Amino acid sequence: MSSRVTRREFVSAAASTAALSKLPVNLSSLWSGAASEVPLSSDPDWKDQGVLNLAHSPYAKLKNVPVHAVAIQEGFWSSRRAANVSTSIPSMGKLLESNGRMDNFRRLTGKSDAPQRGPVYSDSDIYKWWEAIGFALQSGDSPALRAMVENTAKDVMAAQQPDGYLNTYYIRERAADRMTQKTQQWGHELYCMGHFLQGATSYYRATGDRALLDAGIRFVNEFLIPSYGPEASKKPLLSGHPEMELALVELYRMTGDKRHLNLAEYLLRGDARIPLKPENYVYHFCGKPFTSRTKLEGHAVRAMYACCGATDYYLETGDETYWKTLNTLWEDLVSSKMYITGGVGARSDGEAFGDAYELPNAQAYGESCAAIGNMMWSWRMLAATGDGKYADVIERALYNGINSGMSLSGNLYCYRNPLAFDPGTGDVIRNEWYDTTCCPPNLERTFASLPGYFYSTSKDGIYVHLFHNSELNWHLEDGTPIKIVQKTNYPWDGRVDFEVSPATPKEFTVYVRLPEWSSHSNFKAGFAEGITDRKNGYGQIRRRWSPGDKFSLSFNLAPQLIEANARVVENSGRVALQRGPLVYCLEQIDQPEGTSLADVSLRRDIHNSGKDSSESFEKDLLGGVVVLRHVGEVSTSSAARRSLYFSADAPGSSSSKVELKFIPYYVWANRRPTPMQVWTPLQRS
Amino acid sequence: MSSRVTRREFVSAAASTAALSKLPVNLSSLWSGAASEVPLSSDPDWKDQGVLNLAHSPYAKLKNVPVHAVAIQEGFWSSRRAANVSTSIPSMGKLLESNGRMDNFRRLTGKSDAPQRGPVYSDSDIYKWWEAIGFALQSGDSPALRAMVENTAKDVMAAQQPDGYLNTYYIRERAADRMTQKTQQWGHELYCMGHFLQGATSYYRATGDRALLDAGIRFVNEFLIPSYGPEASKKPLLSGHPEMELALVELYRMTGDKRHLNLAEYLLRGDARIPLKPENYVYHFCGKPFTSRTKLEGHAVRAMYACCGATDYYLETGDETYWKTLNTLWEDLVSSKMYITGGVGARSDGEAFGDAYELPNAQAYGESCAAIGNMMWSWRMLAATGDGKYADVIERALYNGINSGMSLSGNLYCYRNPLAFDPGTGDVIRNEWYDTTCCPPNLERTFASLPGYFYSTSKDGIYVHLFHNSELNWHLEDGTPIKIVQKTNYPWDGRVDFEVSPATPKEFTVYVRLPEWSSHSNFKAGFAEGITDRKNGYGQIRRRWSPGDKFSLSFNLAPQLIEANARVVENSGRVALQRGPLVYCLEQIDQPEGTSLADVSLRRDIHNSGKDSSESFEKDLLGGVVVLRHVGEVSTSSAARRSLYFSADAPGSSSSKVELKFIPYYVWANRRPTPMQVWTPLQRS
Repeated sequence: MSSRVTRREFVSAAASTAALSKLPVNLSSLWSGAASEVPLSSDPDWKDQGVLNLAHSPYAKLKNVPVHAVAIQEGFWSSRRAANVSTSIPSMGKLLESNGRMDNFRRLTGKSDAPQRGPVYSDSDIYKWWEAIGFALQSGDSPALRAMVENTAKDVMAAQQPDGYLNTYYIRERAADRMTQKTQQWGHELYCMGHFLQGATSYYRATGDRALLDAGIRFVNEFLIPSYGPEASKKPLLSGHPEMELALVELYRMTGDKRHLNLAEYLLRGDARIPLKPENYVYHFCGKPFTSRTKLEGHAVRAMYACCGATDYYLETGDETYWKTLNTLWEDLVSSKMYITGGVGARSDGEAFGDAYELPNAQAYGESCAAIGNMMWSWRMLAATGDGKYADVIERALYNGINSGMSLSGNLYCYRNPLAFDPGTGDVIRNEWYDTTCCPPNLERTFASLPGYFYSTSKDGIYVHLFHNSELNWHLEDGTPIKIVQKTNYPWDGRVDFEVSPATPKEFTVYVRLPEWSSHSNFKAGFAEGITDRKNGYGQIRRRWSPGDKFSLSFNLAPQLIEANARVVENSGRVALQRGPLVYCLEQIDQPEGTSLADVSLRRDIHNSGKDSSESFEKDLLGGVVVLRHVGEVSTSSAARRSLYFSADAPGSSSSKVELKFIPYYVWANRRPTPMQVWTPLQRS
Repeated sequence: MSSRVTRREFVSAAASTAALSKLPVNLSSLWSGAASEVPLSSDPDWKDQGVLNLAHSPYAKLKNVPVHAVAIQEGFWSSRRAANVSTSIPSMGKLLESNGRMDNFRRLTGKSDAPQRGPVYSDSDIYKWWEAIGFALQSGDSPALRAMVENTAKDVMAAQQPDGYLNTYYIRERAADRMTQKTQQWGHELYCMGHFLQGATSYYRATGDRALLDAGIRFVNEFLIPSYGPEASKKPLLSGHPEMELALVELYRMTGDKRHLNLAEYLLRGDARIPLKPENYVYHFCGKPFTSRTKLEGHAVRAMYACCGATDYYLETGDETYWKTLNTLWEDLVSSKMYITGGVGARSDGEAFGDAYELPNAQAYGESCAAIGNMMWSWRMLAATGDGKYADVIERALYNGINSGMSLSGNLYCYRNPLAFDPGTGDVIRNEWYDTTCCPPNLERTFASLPGYFYSTSKDGIYVHLFHNSELNWHLEDGTPIKIVQKTNYPWDGRVDFEVSPATPKEFTVYVRLPEWSSHSNFKAGFAEGITDRKNGYGQIRRRWSPGDKFSLSFNLAPQLIEANARVVENSGRVALQRGPLVYCLEQIDQPEGTSLADVSLRRDIHNSGKDSSESFEKDLLGGVVVLRHVGEVSTSSAARRSLYFSADAPGSSSSKVELKFIPYYVWANRRPTPMQVWTPLQRS
């Protein structure tokens, strides 16, 4: 077994109180129950805690930089993030209200007589929306955003039961089902409260207001821990939909209370007193030891969140058994179960992982939440290792399979993110509201938290993971203040100019990510040393840095034809176009009149020649994108070949040239619905 | 609206009684309720009614030939059919017993105190097994087989309620749910009784014993019709899982009672008083007018059975609205939704049809029941038209996607029939028992009924649909006795010798099917006239036939490379090998050591040259099959290409020659589990 650490030493109630005094505390006064002021870590202070507070995680090689430390400026993400705050978050608030999600709480205090509405996990949508608001506030205070949390949180907190339990579904007429073994499996009670803790944590780190967090702690300390656990005297516990695990480890990072870490481990381990059907150990991805897992399977979001929780547990404990399992699962993901977009979850049936290499395109599920889970997990693996392969997956998912999940307008969301689509099937891919509305607030919290993913610190320097016009104002781990300015039009343009300014001249390493797709690019630094080393996906520049030191990267963004492993049967003989981190696709609407996507192909010789292909930035198209034009072929006889099966000896098809126009995948389905596809047949001759 | 026919004229109670007197009636004495002897048609007599009794169906161009009229002799089907009777049917009887399916009935009469076991539709498994036994008895009497029905039927009949209701699930503790709108949608009450009627009909046609049929009529006449129907005074009815429709039309063919036909039509039309969620109109394939359907969707077996019932309704009424819809749906099936094996139903999720051209291989559902439903539907369409395109689909499904459903041993069954398989996924494809055991008895009834599909009669002659060593003893529609002897080793060998012997010389047409795959074959008749015409998929030989007249067919069985429409994405760039009606596949176990199916391909030039390919009958392999050997290529570098995505500019793969051995698809998974695939990549150069 691995060693366990304690962090009691850096927690003090006094420090916590000092932190709280810095901002008005609006919500704390609302809690009418007995005060249970659990001491919280003040090192770092609440506002300097990152997406993950890894400051004292002994097995985190990289530490998070807080969201507020990175100012994202004009560029690829700026309009997306502006729409998130101005449109997505407010409109989601209205929809949560109009769909009864808040009345679910109010009915419990007599403020509403509406019946319960929505599925069992409906509470979590509010909490994830809080988390999005908390992250947005970490980038800049806003009374309007604060009010959204304050106005809803008071109704939520009022619904918490005297014993700490909080859930609007398994109460009153369904109270008898509360926390039964069946409900633990299917009822999402812990899932909802995991999201409660995450939302509360995000709001706390934005405002210093710990009222919500205290309510979450009450649930854990007063409802869960006294009654549930592995001890014979306690009732068994199952997470059902993993989520509480990662929330508990993050809580432990603030409370230093080993019971929180141990409870996470207990959930990850499972309790044999709650036996599941074999297929439900698969589906739920919990209930048996996480360390007994050998492949990703079952419900994709559950699996990703379980992996997040397990990695969080590893970051605190260094448990090698977990580490081995995590590596096995991550290799399984990237070698056989991830879409080129970073999306995961091949099957609609059970919203599940498929078998190895089962990656259908039109039928892809690719739930937005699962791609986000993938990014969250890879972020934790990156923290554990500093290995750029995890950052590559983060970039892939972020720019493609997550980015596609929200419309450019900010008010329409994908639940599924398929890699081919035909509106003739009747499927409507972007919607304002889903009765299971897990994805929209998940996308909102991800975009809002984005600055927290740009940099990490390590003992010997600082890591640059993502490229964008931006300014970092933070400090090295030894406390030296540092500012890093990025100037770039990435990913449309391959050049990124850096200005690195420690407060005083100092020797340290800047690790700058060289994405896996850029292996043919040339990199230069603006000074003699250059990029001295490339290791684990990062170029390393170790020198004595002085304020204003500059260097540049120049990525080769020539579009690449990407093939899939031959075992991915739907992609056999097909290629995808990728330019930098962006995966491209064809939308019917952009092709010459009468050209069916089912009939087009690319030719390798045309691609290799570089002739008959071009790229251009179209500023008025889809918010401004680089489009790729490629001469391909269109079969002119396919309409005649109407039969489903025919002899290969039948006369060959004739074809003619056609100019195909590719757009980035993430902007698909932002115009009227037309067919779309990522993978296009390649004629080799 | 179309004209409706009445058949009262050919029904007489006296005739029925006469028929009954021919055989001992074992079961009739068991029914203790009031006698309700509904008159049954005696023209034809019970024993001369075919799989469908179309003798008086005004819109049936072709009439069925009874099962007993065709003796199937040594050949392709003989060992399958022998295993069906000696192994499948008896072992299924034991499994139905040991899994409590009969105790479900006995508990209602106090003969068992076991609790209810199995899903809601469990009763139907008994009834479908009866149907199989009935068909087997039509090919030859057997006390042992009769005893299986008699011993179970008495317990089943004893469980019928005084009001005619019969179901072991919605009774006693669940009686309050009986026939509620929710139960009608999900509870399979009508589905079970539809199978009861089919089982009873099959047994009646084998034995003349009408006791079971009378019990079924009681359910319809005493329970259903008085209380359920479109009239405002009655409760609305929904079939939920279509099946009762076709059973009711077949019942009408025996009773001549228009209420049975009208009830079928009412179920096909749906009743707006039972509103379904939009997705459930899709899933259940009922509840709204069948004639409003424009595509196949939802649960594949439900859709196929609904189409059977609708075609049955058309055969009686000639309703053009139905005919138009049936043609639209059948075209949808064969142009975009049927596997090359004749299997249907692409999705495990909902056991459902996919979108057009959504035909994944490894993920294919292809439920055995759905392929059988396809055959049953096409058989009805063939009767309506005499068009061989329907017989082509019957042959395709029968020899491949249905045939694969039962192991050579006769005691293991496929529920799914995928077109690619990797046992590494953990899936076990053939099983002795499924808790939802719809497919096994469905396969049993299909194999048992096979002789009934060989021939049809028409006003001007006789149709030959299937080829096999066999002897027909029947009569033309004018009553002239006729014997037809087939001598052949089809489908292993392409030659079929016919001897046609009317009792007296007579002019009529022999329509002999020329399968769509045989378009390059040569056909000769053994006399001057030859095959004078080929129309609608049948060669027509009209002449004055004398006893002992002979002719022969000689099909070219050279293996064909079959391509799929380019819209079937998983088959893009791939081919299937087909020889005659048999689709072939590769099983890993037959390939040279170390050759992974994921790495192999065929070359068009090698195929076209005819060199490096061969075929041979291996009598000791898998019951005796023709295997195809084809030199192909195996990629030798794929193991090194372990990544999921890579630049197409990466060094090309190298490959070496390999001799691939193909076996017929229907015998796959009869040895130890190894990977299998039907579609193999084709190198065009």
